[in-house]
Amino acid sequence: MIKVSIMYPNNAGARFDHDYYRDQHLPLIKSRMSAGLKYYTVDKGLTGATPDASAPFVAMCHLLCDSVETYQAAFGPHAQEIRADISKFTNVTPVRQISEVVVENSAAALAKFP
Amino acid sequence: MIKVSIMYPNNAGARFDHDYYRDQHLPLIKSRMSAGLKYYTVDKGLTGATPDASAPFVAMCHLLCDSVETYQAAFGPHAQEIRADISKFTNVTPVRQISEVVVENSAAALAKFP
Repeated sequence: MIKVSIMYPNNAGARFDHDYYRDQHLPLIKSRMSAGLKYYTVDKGLTGATPDASAPFVAMCHLLCDSVETYQAAFGPHAQEIRADISKFTNVTPVRQISEVVVENSAAALAKFP
Repeated sequence: MIKVSIMYPNNAGARFDHDYYRDQHLPLIKSRMSAGLKYYTVDKGLTGATPDASAPFVAMCHLLCDSVETYQAAFGPHAQEIRADISKFTNVTPVRQISEVVVENSAAALAKFP
């Protein structure tokens, strides 16, 4: 499994509409990628490592897919539409990364049998 | 719920032992934080947004906790021991962030009733 992480740097002057991001942008991605997207997670940056340090990223999302090929096939045809939506919630250019999922959820085995 | 993200920049000359990270370091964190850590995820950086771009981070982990207070109470007493372990798998100083979990898992409701 792979994880596509989209991370929005917390630049000075960064604008970010967290409500739009949660309620519109991620559902748009889910709608367009359909079964090619297993699930996603959304984070809102609070602080750095200490309460008085600012968060490096104002927001992040992580898209979980079976493989890089699955991601590309599902996202690629809609990339232009999805990227055009970004200006509706932020003026920040995201940092993007594709990772191999080494541990998806360390408690998953327990969660299945609570 | 909050997410503590520890992200290791993919600097030139970065050394990173992914096996030690998965098999020793994260289990150490889990052992020390005990019930204060709900679960964790581990990522190994593959590429940037395109296959020919390098990953911004060589590795990441995300620690899920009920609250910042829970995290601090569980991690704080062991911070020195856990940080001393970092040099065993990398020469990179991580970027750290605490986020509010806006969406933990977009498919969680479905996952409970497969």
